[in-house]
Amino acid sequence: MRTSQYILATLKETPSDAEIISHQLMLRAGMIRKLASGLYTWLPSGLKVLRKVEQVVREEMDKAGAIEMLMPVIQPADLWQESGRWEQFGPELLRITDRHNRPFALGPTHEEVITDFVRKEISSYKQLPVTLYQVQTKVRDEVRPRFGVMRAREFTMKDAYSFHMTEECLAQTYQRMHKAYCNVFERLGLDYRPVIADTGSIGGSVSHEFHVLAESGEDAIAFSTDSDYAANIEKAEALAPTEARPEPSKELNTFATPEAKTIAELKAKHGVKPHRGVKTLIVYGVPDENEQRGLVALILRGDHELNELKAEKHPLIDSPLEMAKEEDIFAAIGAYPGSLGPVGLTIPVIVDRSAAVMADFVAGANKDGEHYSGINWDRDVTNYEVFDLRNVVEGDPSPCGKGTLQIKRGIEVGHIFQLGTKYSEAMNAGVLGENGKNQIMTMGCYGIGVSRIVAAAIEQNNDDYGIKWTTALAPFELAIVPMNMHKSHRIPEIAERLYSEFKQAGIDVLFDDRKERPGVMFNDMELLGVPYTLVIGERNLDNNQVELKNRRTGEKLMLDIEEAVAAISAQIRG
Amino acid sequence: MRTSQYILATLKETPSDAEIISHQLMLRAGMIRKLASGLYTWLPSGLKVLRKVEQVVREEMDKAGAIEMLMPVIQPADLWQESGRWEQFGPELLRITDRHNRPFALGPTHEEVITDFVRKEISSYKQLPVTLYQVQTKVRDEVRPRFGVMRAREFTMKDAYSFHMTEECLAQTYQRMHKAYCNVFERLGLDYRPVIADTGSIGGSVSHEFHVLAESGEDAIAFSTDSDYAANIEKAEALAPTEARPEPSKELNTFATPEAKTIAELKAKHGVKPHRGVKTLIVYGVPDENEQRGLVALILRGDHELNELKAEKHPLIDSPLEMAKEEDIFAAIGAYPGSLGPVGLTIPVIVDRSAAVMADFVAGANKDGEHYSGINWDRDVTNYEVFDLRNVVEGDPSPCGKGTLQIKRGIEVGHIFQLGTKYSEAMNAGVLGENGKNQIMTMGCYGIGVSRIVAAAIEQNNDDYGIKWTTALAPFELAIVPMNMHKSHRIPEIAERLYSEFKQAGIDVLFDDRKERPGVMFNDMELLGVPYTLVIGERNLDNNQVELKNRRTGEKLMLDIEEAVAAISAQIRG
Repeated sequence: MRTSQYILATLKETPSDAEIISHQLMLRAGMIRKLASGLYTWLPSGLKVLRKVEQVVREEMDKAGAIEMLMPVIQPADLWQESGRWEQFGPELLRITDRHNRPFALGPTHEEVITDFVRKEISSYKQLPVTLYQVQTKVRDEVRPRFGVMRAREFTMKDAYSFHMTEECLAQTYQRMHKAYCNVFERLGLDYRPVIADTGSIGGSVSHEFHVLAESGEDAIAFSTDSDYAANIEKAEALAPTEARPEPSKELNTFATPEAKTIAELKAKHGVKPHRGVKTLIVYGVPDENEQRGLVALILRGDHELNELKAEKHPLIDSPLEMAKEEDIFAAIGAYPGSLGPVGLTIPVIVDRSAAVMADFVAGANKDGEHYSGINWDRDVTNYEVFDLRNVVEGDPSPCGKGTLQIKRGIEVGHIFQLGTKYSEAMNAGVLGENGKNQIMTMGCYGIGVSRIVAAAIEQNNDDYGIKWTTALAPFELAIVPMNMHKSHRIPEIAERLYSEFKQAGIDVLFDDRKERPGVMFNDMELLGVPYTLVIGERNLDNNQVELKNRRTGEKLMLDIEEAVAAISAQIRG
Repeated sequence: MRTSQYILATLKETPSDAEIISHQLMLRAGMIRKLASGLYTWLPSGLKVLRKVEQVVREEMDKAGAIEMLMPVIQPADLWQESGRWEQFGPELLRITDRHNRPFALGPTHEEVITDFVRKEISSYKQLPVTLYQVQTKVRDEVRPRFGVMRAREFTMKDAYSFHMTEECLAQTYQRMHKAYCNVFERLGLDYRPVIADTGSIGGSVSHEFHVLAESGEDAIAFSTDSDYAANIEKAEALAPTEARPEPSKELNTFATPEAKTIAELKAKHGVKPHRGVKTLIVYGVPDENEQRGLVALILRGDHELNELKAEKHPLIDSPLEMAKEEDIFAAIGAYPGSLGPVGLTIPVIVDRSAAVMADFVAGANKDGEHYSGINWDRDVTNYEVFDLRNVVEGDPSPCGKGTLQIKRGIEVGHIFQLGTKYSEAMNAGVLGENGKNQIMTMGCYGIGVSRIVAAAIEQNNDDYGIKWTTALAPFELAIVPMNMHKSHRIPEIAERLYSEFKQAGIDVLFDDRKERPGVMFNDMELLGVPYTLVIGERNLDNNQVELKNRRTGEKLMLDIEEAVAAISAQIRG
């Protein structure tokens, strides 16, 4: 391809509305343009990268035994009503009506459509297991689309769905897909981690997210220093401390704290170290035998953070978690937040594992402007339950039993779920079992954010000059940059000859034949992240040589013209 | 691929709601399933065919110098308002609102989006010409979706757009795209015709449709018997007859026709042959100098049909054409339709070329229940104009000057337009010209109905047993059908060995390893249209042979097992 006949569309300035580096570089390198909020046009060089991701994903899906098909983007509302998600899904589900006023949705995912398809087409256990996938345009009407294609409203996904007679069979396919996902990210040359994840609103039991590691990642991931263990911080278990709780050594005493309502204020005004105090959070739940809604107290060490997903798993606590209103708290306890604590509470008390091994600690006295010091469990508070309530922090022991936890940031690019029968049961998707009876199928689902991978790869591979593509993802394998082509006879002649020879050798080459200054051309090729640039200049030609620059390593290599095509092709393909 | 691990989904019965053969066969062969009206899921075998069409289209577009990109399906309303089509487009444009109540459309075509893109990204004549294309999901909210993927609401299109400084440059690209389209249809092995077409609502001057010829086609195409000339019947010119008009030989006479209001009734009741009478159609127009709306009379030979598009091209006639209401006709002429004719009319009279060479003909007397016979132009009607108003019929002289016209039916699968400045002017899409001044670009647009081609190919290639794919389109190149595999040791052994050898030879082979009767397996492979079937049976194995069946020709060939893979691979690739 010649740049003179291409839409290069590079930008010198960083667009002001692009917050993260991948969004900035995709705009500057001419890979994407915004059409409207969360809607992006893929320019030729961007689309080439997108297609490369798609191709690797397809190959690994096929290898794992999944079969490709293609479902409509537009989905009838009745299937979503059948699964219950027409009501449950928020405004992210873009609902539309057709000319006859019939309701449809633009699909953000296809559990309903595939379950409907399989219940109609598959009738016997003999046809199972089966895994079906598609690579498709998806729509999610994000409330605040941002970061370019990272969180867009229209995007490309690979979504796969598997159907089984048994949990064991599902687990086998799940493992195969897990492996296929690892293959995809390895082939793309990305630093990634499969992490144990929460199943969230999709449902099901076992689930893994695949994260590309990058500073700008929206998710925090906890890793073991000594094993493969990795989990979304929402999901990582905070183990009970191994040390025993010290014996009480202090008396229970009150002290006045009129201006200290937070852990930070207690430290500043009264010298209470955060890990020596507890925080008391009051939430709604169903604490009583008559199923009446009431209040529940959650106790955490002062320096720890509540993990809402963990709290929601406790049977007494409402899901979604809701913090109690101040007036409800005052009515039940007689004090406002800032002076609450476990001593003397009549509502259920749930204590985080780390708070449960504290002794002689500080907490509110359930009387405004007053705290207790010297609180001890069992002596001062007898009715309580211990539960994992908090986010892990760096240095916590790893739940896998090996090493301690580190926390890094990641961008979620894949998510796999053992769904179980959530959709197949709601939609009555059964087949004839071996025993001749109808049996509801067990399902798995497996997503990859194809367009998001492009952005995530850039977050991980860039420098001050632009994108540094891995060979697997680069829009072009090689750029030819002739210097001052219009001032010389032999430069264009040799550039044209090499361009034609590289094309014949099957190398995807971008020939910068514009009448631009060398600096402009180098900048554009670096911005676009082409892995190799072949520079053709007068001085080197005097020695019958050309120069090869490696974008990732910065290395420069002089090559005799006659051997350049063979040597470079071998290096690229090698 | 093994059928036991595939979604074959063939049906024995023809689904009752499928009217045309391609729709029936696509359902029966398990290529598509209906999700909702006009919305289809592509099953694995159907998707493979669709992807093969896409691939050929992409290769020919790239070869023609077009560059691939990808625009969003969801388009902001403001661009459509800018071009004026937000108002002009009917309910086929599926309009939606997002969560913030902003209006968008699901794109049936992308003139607005690409024009907006190019006006922002291209600033100088030096960057032109450029041709951009995409292969994409399109949406058209058809009032009556039908014929499966032939007229669906969601479908796959290749749409391309070119931008130029001059009409000449556009004409060159147009020719290159015309050639690329011919290459596509030739490579797909289809019997097709490029035909001169009307530009319709897209706008522009020159336009060609590409039709796949098939009995079931919705469009009538007029061909010359002696040249390449082909035109949509809407567009084919009806030449003026070469014979001179006979001299008048009869007097003008009235006769009573109380029960003869149509050409057919005149023939039945009064023996007037249709080609000896004329029909008089009254339409609205602006016949008068003061630009007042009024009536215009159109005169056609009794056996000819009005071509509305031709009539709309006359400056006096309203576009879109509208037949006058009976009360307006009576008010102006004093008679109702059924008794109208050209004699004595005071409104403008426009006469079709073939009607203008008639003599001594019959027409209504503009008095209810009365007709004239012996009418002659110039003697009885002096104020009239001759114009091409009718559809061509078989046997008409070809407008190209060679041969006569034949009429065949076709399915429109492609359409190319020289748009001119319709969109670029409305959207102020200009670039800096060589003279340093801003100049509006000239545009072309080029569409191919990718998913529609799949159905059209089936309309052209089928028999009583199913689909007869050309090699370029077949979902699999070869089927292996072992007969009664479970009753023998050596049949599965040889089938497995050959399956593995064909895969290694790069042949896309479907191995029917189901425990089904041979008849069921043969029927499925014929229905699916696999070009070659390799039959492995006990009797032939005794002679160390297998049998190859050719789906298109019906030929059978015995092959020694040891040479089967090489011989068949050569035949498929040859």
